[in-house]
Amino acid sequence: MADSKVSPVPLLKEELDIVIPTIRNLDFLEMWRPFFQPYHLIIVQDGDPSKVINVPEGFDYELYNRNDINRILGPKASCISFKDSACRCFGYMVSKKKYIYTIDDDCFVAKDPSGKNINALEQHIKNLLTPATPHFFNTLYDPYREGADFVRGYPFSLREGVPTAVSHGLWLNIPDYDAPTQLVKPLERNTRYVDAVLTIPKSTLFPMCGMNLAFDRELIGPAMYFGLMGDGQPIGRYDDMWAGWCMKVICDHLGFGVKTGLPYIWHSKASNPFVNLKKEYKGIYWQEELIPFFQAVKLPAECTTVQECYIELSKQVKAKLGGIDEYFDKLADAMVTWIEAWDELNPSGSKAANQSA
Amino acid sequence: MADSKVSPVPLLKEELDIVIPTIRNLDFLEMWRPFFQPYHLIIVQDGDPSKVINVPEGFDYELYNRNDINRILGPKASCISFKDSACRCFGYMVSKKKYIYTIDDDCFVAKDPSGKNINALEQHIKNLLTPATPHFFNTLYDPYREGADFVRGYPFSLREGVPTAVSHGLWLNIPDYDAPTQLVKPLERNTRYVDAVLTIPKSTLFPMCGMNLAFDRELIGPAMYFGLMGDGQPIGRYDDMWAGWCMKVICDHLGFGVKTGLPYIWHSKASNPFVNLKKEYKGIYWQEELIPFFQAVKLPAECTTVQECYIELSKQVKAKLGGIDEYFDKLADAMVTWIEAWDELNPSGSKAANQSA
Repeated sequence: MADSKVSPVPLLKEELDIVIPTIRNLDFLEMWRPFFQPYHLIIVQDGDPSKVINVPEGFDYELYNRNDINRILGPKASCISFKDSACRCFGYMVSKKKYIYTIDDDCFVAKDPSGKNINALEQHIKNLLTPATPHFFNTLYDPYREGADFVRGYPFSLREGVPTAVSHGLWLNIPDYDAPTQLVKPLERNTRYVDAVLTIPKSTLFPMCGMNLAFDRELIGPAMYFGLMGDGQPIGRYDDMWAGWCMKVICDHLGFGVKTGLPYIWHSKASNPFVNLKKEYKGIYWQEELIPFFQAVKLPAECTTVQECYIELSKQVKAKLGGIDEYFDKLADAMVTWIEAWDELNPSGSKAANQSA
Repeated sequence: MADSKVSPVPLLKEELDIVIPTIRNLDFLEMWRPFFQPYHLIIVQDGDPSKVINVPEGFDYELYNRNDINRILGPKASCISFKDSACRCFGYMVSKKKYIYTIDDDCFVAKDPSGKNINALEQHIKNLLTPATPHFFNTLYDPYREGADFVRGYPFSLREGVPTAVSHGLWLNIPDYDAPTQLVKPLERNTRYVDAVLTIPKSTLFPMCGMNLAFDRELIGPAMYFGLMGDGQPIGRYDDMWAGWCMKVICDHLGFGVKTGLPYIWHSKASNPFVNLKKEYKGIYWQEELIPFFQAVKLPAECTTVQECYIELSKQVKAKLGGIDEYFDKLADAMVTWIEAWDELNPSGSKAANQSA
């Protein structure tokens, strides 16, 4: 069976880590074995640290539970969420690789329309290794893809593109809906395979889902903070959204690209919409003020590293969102703590970001 | 054979005209009969007006040649291009319908991946009759499509969308490449059927191709001027691009949406790349200044109709592009003439645009 074989790697093990937040045994990895086994896994165990998480044999991994996070970060561990998959961003911080792929443990290998298993990781890597085109929309989608190009009327000066910082993959089967939509459309399934990768244009925001996501850690890592969610916080399920909005305004400022579309994974089970509603309801309300805030954010030209941009953004969050709820004051402080912790664990991080800007 | 039957119409004949620019007998209509026969055709005959163009029996049409254009518009006919498919915009002006579909005479019915003939017109109408979402990107593409919705993190206040002004359809087989790309990749064919419709975000420009295009004439008609091209002009093959850039900045200003993606048509033959290069080369060069111009255009709040926006845009073209070449002076004047001619033929046109703004 082809699936039992391990696929040739499109990137070296030294170049990419796979980050998985979880509270359970990682049986889902069996299906991913041919694609993930060549890489190193960083497992961020959420919830009770005394629980033992089984990892199928043959995978190379390191596992961090809450005790590890507290030990490594000390008081700065306060910026890492607990009892929420937002904890995954700790994995981004401890990785030393150039690229990160993160996936949820309820995501399985999807099939393309021909019935072939999709190597999601390989497609993400393709997306990250080819440029992005945020300054002008190409109607045949990704111009760097085989069989495609820039169409008539696409300025030649823009065809070089810009470095791609983020590759946002999609999901077949259970769509990533909010609680109200889950409640209204409990049976809706995403069955449409859209064979496209596209760059999200500059100055356009989108809802970034953390389920199936890859990024260039050297280019944008410090902006990938998943915020304060879950235990002790007033909201959940906005971790990836928050990271996406922060990341996008920083990519726009620094001239990096963000892609969305392929690859698909198979999202197996919908989370409980009633539980989700409780986590989300403040976010649904606050979001109406967050989006205009992020649409209006201007970062000064002096901010030339991701860290500088992120600290500046934290100040604007405090100044302009603090009035919505004290939560945003706390979040702004946590954003600063996150950067301090990042720089502690990645002493050369600023340099890498500087080179690319 | 299913193809010989006439399809049920998604819009009444009173609501839509099909505009076809041509220099030859319209045999290509045979393949479109089931889809086009229920509608009225406006044929704009380019080139020698004494040539007789055959239209297959059973189609309801009116045909305008250059003599007709000169007779109807008098001195204002100078704004309508000759010996270039840009002449098609005369058809938009003489139509009295709410919607326009325009198609080139070398475009045939494409097949979807299941092998079924694609009713391009029906898909365009769906695109135009559902809202667009230019203010925030939905990662599952068109949220109004069956089986799709807005994803988690999409602000609820933006889910109503905005009126759709333009539906830009794509092409299988011969891609719409510029002459240099045609020369470099003579054998490239577009075989990828991307099953998506998406809104081009606000403030993002794109290369609008006139080959397979539908729009709401009441909302945006006066902005659909295809410029001065062909006979006596220094460029060709930038007619649809020009219209697309003007239209997009006006849609962004007035709050209308522009969609691209489905439906596909089958584009049968590549035009001659050497001839195209001659037509395009100045455009390829000028384009590098046009795009920054359109990216920076600001229309004043007082401009609340398409006509007002378009006249204002013509002034900015004259002021800011006139220095590139005297052609842009002439083009700016022609933009004004176009609006004068439009208003003469459509005395209530401004009113319609006002209602929607």
